[in-house]
Amino acid sequence: MKKFINELDNIEAEMVRGLVRSKAHMLRQLPDSNVVVRTQKKRERVAVLFGCGSGHEPAPCGYVGYGMLDAAVPGSIFSSPTPDQILKGIREVASESGVLCILVNYTGDVLNFRMAIQMAQMEGIAVDSVVVADDVASDTGKATGRRGLAGAILINKIAGAEAEMGVGLYEVKETAEWATAGLRTIGVASSPCIVPEEGKPSFELRDNEMEVGMGLHGEPGVMRAPMRSAEATARDMLDRLLADYKYKGCEVVVLINGLGGTPVMELYIINDFVSRYLAEHDVEVYDTMIGNYMTSMEMKGFSISLMRVDPHLKALYDAPARTAALCR
Amino acid sequence: MKKFINELDNIEAEMVRGLVRSKAHMLRQLPDSNVVVRTQKKRERVAVLFGCGSGHEPAPCGYVGYGMLDAAVPGSIFSSPTPDQILKGIREVASESGVLCILVNYTGDVLNFRMAIQMAQMEGIAVDSVVVADDVASDTGKATGRRGLAGAILINKIAGAEAEMGVGLYEVKETAEWATAGLRTIGVASSPCIVPEEGKPSFELRDNEMEVGMGLHGEPGVMRAPMRSAEATARDMLDRLLADYKYKGCEVVVLINGLGGTPVMELYIINDFVSRYLAEHDVEVYDTMIGNYMTSMEMKGFSISLMRVDPHLKALYDAPARTAALCR
Repeated sequence: MKKFINELDNIEAEMVRGLVRSKAHMLRQLPDSNVVVRTQKKRERVAVLFGCGSGHEPAPCGYVGYGMLDAAVPGSIFSSPTPDQILKGIREVASESGVLCILVNYTGDVLNFRMAIQMAQMEGIAVDSVVVADDVASDTGKATGRRGLAGAILINKIAGAEAEMGVGLYEVKETAEWATAGLRTIGVASSPCIVPEEGKPSFELRDNEMEVGMGLHGEPGVMRAPMRSAEATARDMLDRLLADYKYKGCEVVVLINGLGGTPVMELYIINDFVSRYLAEHDVEVYDTMIGNYMTSMEMKGFSISLMRVDPHLKALYDAPARTAALCR
Repeated sequence: MKKFINELDNIEAEMVRGLVRSKAHMLRQLPDSNVVVRTQKKRERVAVLFGCGSGHEPAPCGYVGYGMLDAAVPGSIFSSPTPDQILKGIREVASESGVLCILVNYTGDVLNFRMAIQMAQMEGIAVDSVVVADDVASDTGKATGRRGLAGAILINKIAGAEAEMGVGLYEVKETAEWATAGLRTIGVASSPCIVPEEGKPSFELRDNEMEVGMGLHGEPGVMRAPMRSAEATARDMLDRLLADYKYKGCEVVVLINGLGGTPVMELYIINDFVSRYLAEHDVEVYDTMIGNYMTSMEMKGFSISLMRVDPHLKALYDAPARTAALCR
């Protein structure tokens, strides 16, 4: 395991501190915790909080700042933040306008957020939540629904922009849910990642194999396939996205997200095909984000997200944002 | 070689097209070439052009846009752009105010840029250049001087911001050279990268080894060392930077640059130590950029750059920028 880390026990703490120190004028870490908030908060508007496991950097803490998140609550590596961590974040950013929590749809995250939200509500805080479940590869008919993937970053952007405008909690939630309804993602991985505490890869792939539909923590996808060209891989992924939601005739934002170990070069090559294929299928691209936005440590692979946008969502997507990992 | 690519011959073309299509409203590719320019150019001011080999994405093309580059000229993978490609870029963005070319100090780049600049000058275009040679690990007393590393991105930002303000070519060049004079970088690598045409790693590192002082294309560094902690690695790198330039008592911008295969998590952990160590050594950090800004494809490793800043450089560093890979 070749990682630039120090003590295993300190990974999450050092990581959050390293980020906060990089933007000391705009980020603040709560004492005895890894919760990150803005140094300045307008207390009179809805606050937006996002939480997920660590190992997905720059998510969640890299998105705290003007126009996006008020608070980020990272858990341990590949583990949901605990209810008390989430509650700490909610309390810190809560005002009379309330707090919208955004989470990705994994069992632990859903349970822990539910508990934290109930505790906050008992304290008289207005809290609501939006669950991102954008992974078209995990629709296995389970009652728990689909997994959440990198599309969550787009929802953070939309909700953060709307909250910044000073509208009510219900309206921010409605808009985030409207965006989520038209959001689909699928990922592939060509190499695993190593959870530091375990010291070995979470799964094995042969030299000529990739996994299609991989989850954010290495959960199995829809199939293990021979390694193919960028074009063949992206075509299969887009076919699955286009079969799942009627994007034909729509305008979309595209997110080509690297999982941490994939060179930006390859993400650009993938988008060359993606942009062409979407045009052929009568899907109009409004804008495309390419980069490492929600990763799985050093995993090689990428995901493609499509978010259907209307004039309101476009305005929110374009609205100014000042965070460590995303600016407008 | 597990890469998401298509035909080997098309890598550079598809990559540039994929980027341009992601930001079609602001980027334009010149016909029959990989030169990228802005869709809109104010013709009455100094233009800034940066060129380097491909394989360093998002550099150079990801930095074209308002407040940074007017043109980017990528070569083949790990090869300088040719004189005719550079000349094409210069011609496209030239106005009576002239063109400033920024390049990294590698023999091929220096020769090709020199030739292109001479040809442009013969056509009556005012062109000048700034060579970035920030690698403290390559000072081997050679007449060719030090290699250029990721610090070039900071020089692109500074020069682009100043050119945007409408000052003269000489002034933009002076400022860029002043910034370069206080700029130092050192890199380490823990795994090699694979040039697609070659299909195998450019060098070998054992499971417990890393290379300190590695160049952008895998050039050997100052030593091959056993893999160490993030802290021990960064301490050694900072000691070399601090020994090379009198940063004590200065204010600096820090760039923690991932080489493509290093998780953002690790870059954050590294900065936790870097920020602490610089404070201990009486170096004040004005701002820190963390991410994959100038890569070596899937190479694992990172570089640390320090750029001494004064009020003028801080204002240029903070000035608005709208590019695919860097926004303010």
